[in-house]
Amino acid sequence: MRAVILTIGDELLSGITVNTNASFIAGRLTELGIRVARILALPDSEEAIVEALHTAIQDSELTVLTGGLGPTRDDVTQKALCRFFHCGLVFRQDVWDAIVDRFRRMGRDLPESNRVQAEVPEIAEILPNPRGTAPGLYFKHDGRLLFALPGVPYEMKAMMADSVLPRLERLPRSRSVHFHNIHTAGISESGLADLLDGFYARFPETGLAFLPSLSGVTLRLMAEDAPGRPGADLLERARAFVLKKAGEWRYGEKNDTLEQVTGNLLIQKGLSLSVAESCTGGLLSHKLTQIPGSSAYLNRTIVAYSNQAKKDLLGVPASLLEKYGAVSRETAAAMAEGVRKDSGTDLGLSVTGIAGPGGGTVEKPVGLVFTGVSDGARTLVEENRFIQDREVNKERSAYAALNLLRRFVLGKI
Amino acid sequence: MRAVILTIGDELLSGITVNTNASFIAGRLTELGIRVARILALPDSEEAIVEALHTAIQDSELTVLTGGLGPTRDDVTQKALCRFFHCGLVFRQDVWDAIVDRFRRMGRDLPESNRVQAEVPEIAEILPNPRGTAPGLYFKHDGRLLFALPGVPYEMKAMMADSVLPRLERLPRSRSVHFHNIHTAGISESGLADLLDGFYARFPETGLAFLPSLSGVTLRLMAEDAPGRPGADLLERARAFVLKKAGEWRYGEKNDTLEQVTGNLLIQKGLSLSVAESCTGGLLSHKLTQIPGSSAYLNRTIVAYSNQAKKDLLGVPASLLEKYGAVSRETAAAMAEGVRKDSGTDLGLSVTGIAGPGGGTVEKPVGLVFTGVSDGARTLVEENRFIQDREVNKERSAYAALNLLRRFVLGKI
Repeated sequence: MRAVILTIGDELLSGITVNTNASFIAGRLTELGIRVARILALPDSEEAIVEALHTAIQDSELTVLTGGLGPTRDDVTQKALCRFFHCGLVFRQDVWDAIVDRFRRMGRDLPESNRVQAEVPEIAEILPNPRGTAPGLYFKHDGRLLFALPGVPYEMKAMMADSVLPRLERLPRSRSVHFHNIHTAGISESGLADLLDGFYARFPETGLAFLPSLSGVTLRLMAEDAPGRPGADLLERARAFVLKKAGEWRYGEKNDTLEQVTGNLLIQKGLSLSVAESCTGGLLSHKLTQIPGSSAYLNRTIVAYSNQAKKDLLGVPASLLEKYGAVSRETAAAMAEGVRKDSGTDLGLSVTGIAGPGGGTVEKPVGLVFTGVSDGARTLVEENRFIQDREVNKERSAYAALNLLRRFVLGKI
Repeated sequence: MRAVILTIGDELLSGITVNTNASFIAGRLTELGIRVARILALPDSEEAIVEALHTAIQDSELTVLTGGLGPTRDDVTQKALCRFFHCGLVFRQDVWDAIVDRFRRMGRDLPESNRVQAEVPEIAEILPNPRGTAPGLYFKHDGRLLFALPGVPYEMKAMMADSVLPRLERLPRSRSVHFHNIHTAGISESGLADLLDGFYARFPETGLAFLPSLSGVTLRLMAEDAPGRPGADLLERARAFVLKKAGEWRYGEKNDTLEQVTGNLLIQKGLSLSVAESCTGGLLSHKLTQIPGSSAYLNRTIVAYSNQAKKDLLGVPASLLEKYGAVSRETAAAMAEGVRKDSGTDLGLSVTGIAGPGGGTVEKPVGLVFTGVSDGARTLVEENRFIQDREVNKERSAYAALNLLRRFVLGKI
């Protein structure tokens, strides 16, 4: 099954908003074995939307559209859909009741004049919006499917989960191509390619793609159904091979993230954690607290941006800072040990480095980053050499620290 | 001038990568008065790229393309460009010399077999890549312009700044529409609309758009040149009106970000800062350290995720935590005062709240967040009520704290 994603909104075309909706929807469809052929960002223009709908419906079986459905903005998407499908609007009592009820629960009255919000294209099936007022719309047209959702990310995500994905999962044909993601961290693309040498010879009918990101490299396996040879079986055999070869570098599969996997590991083992950051400036801690329930393991984080803070709060000896410098194997070890000791947690995690653009020298260039972990009995430090800009270096450093922690807790290092 | 942005890469269509390149390029073009009519994400498929090039060149004067030009991946973009322009590849000695030189500086040898990297479409002008090996390509075709850049964000950004934008700035026609962004924080879209009442009557020929994001609302002004009436003049008059009306809520213009503006303010005034975070988990500190040179003002951040850490590290009295709770006006004040006192900085900034999804009660629902600031003599706390999900609440809380700090330092509160 081929899909096209249409995202509507002037803010996408002026660069004000990064299109996270598109990648979210693309990710979910890909997991279902649906091939996303194209993603478009379009302005709030009826003309542009109608034109894009024509092309999308022509060359794909599924169109997912977001944006322009909200009640307070120009409803061009709704108008464009009516024009495209040659249909009128009808007042839907159930939609109106849901809006009234939502406002009542928020303690607010809704003026009768807002009834226009409950007018929807007559041929559309209504998809309830558990987190907002604008309902989603589902159209079936000559065997083609079209879902229209609001552009507010947390409304859209809930409606994808509640309404869109369950309907797509029920379609038999969406399962003709099978995908499986295996996520790795701490190893390069070429390093992985070496480990997986022999894959193509052994699994000639299974696709393998290397997808690098800031957290690591994702291996995506792909297999198609053929008569008497289910793609799922091919995929399962290839998956077993890759899992074995990728070894400790593999941290998860499917939708797993490194922060989630690492956090869950701490919860499972009942371990508490404290963090000492320098160059990442709070990003490592931010990632650790993106997961609901992270207060179960995270006790505290010290962002010791100054040497004074490293001494006062983490107990890094002045002599050590003087001898080796703030960016050193020794300081990373002392930071992890210091924060653990002071907080009384099971584990201490540290990161110190040169994020750039300034501050680099010949011996200690921009991108040199040390990550450290300690459980009191044992302290380990790893050296990383990143070469990119400040934002990238911060991201990579935070993930390197998470991956060090993960392998340490698993007893792999 | 109308533009189309084409972004190439399977990772965009499988949802692995968020398309930040598209929003970056769109933002820069919009600033130049170029209207971005459409953004496409396409797979690494020669067929798909050629087809998209045809449509793009047909209905826009400018096409900016990124991705698929790297040396280690399938070079489908280069192939597609050659097919589209009916041209061959030539070996370019200057491109090869630059690649060899780059490897030499990194202390690595480059095998002669890599000479293929210096083969480029014969009709293209070469755009140097200061941060990588794949050069950019510039095509002029029947009065239409096409730039092809690598997809690695930090390479692409450097080449936009060095090669693409200077060329576009020299085109007279790109200046027919003028834009100007004014950024606000801490005030709602409808609150701003009230403040700007009368704008449309007073400036009938100037467009005004409200663009909400997690950091606040951006006001975008737009004016077109007409005979005898330069758009820039219209824009300047409207700008003065908006700046006056938006008052203290306005923190910047053009590309300013709240973190940058706030950080620069601290540097200008020579003020040092320490931060105490709870619900934001390090995100506030991460934002403050995204700006190169932030070590000039940021001394330390304490992420006191546990009550124990709030007591031990920030000196929040146990009795206060017991009486008012960790999420309270009183705790926010004590956190800002405590971190400031311990670190000896000029200012202390704090945030405590309920990010969700769990932890909310009837009196203290998810989204309740207190931000505090103190200079020792005076402590101010603000109450915020956000209503969205964990990630959104963390982002909004961090920006609310930055905005509180900004207004405090400016003496506006």
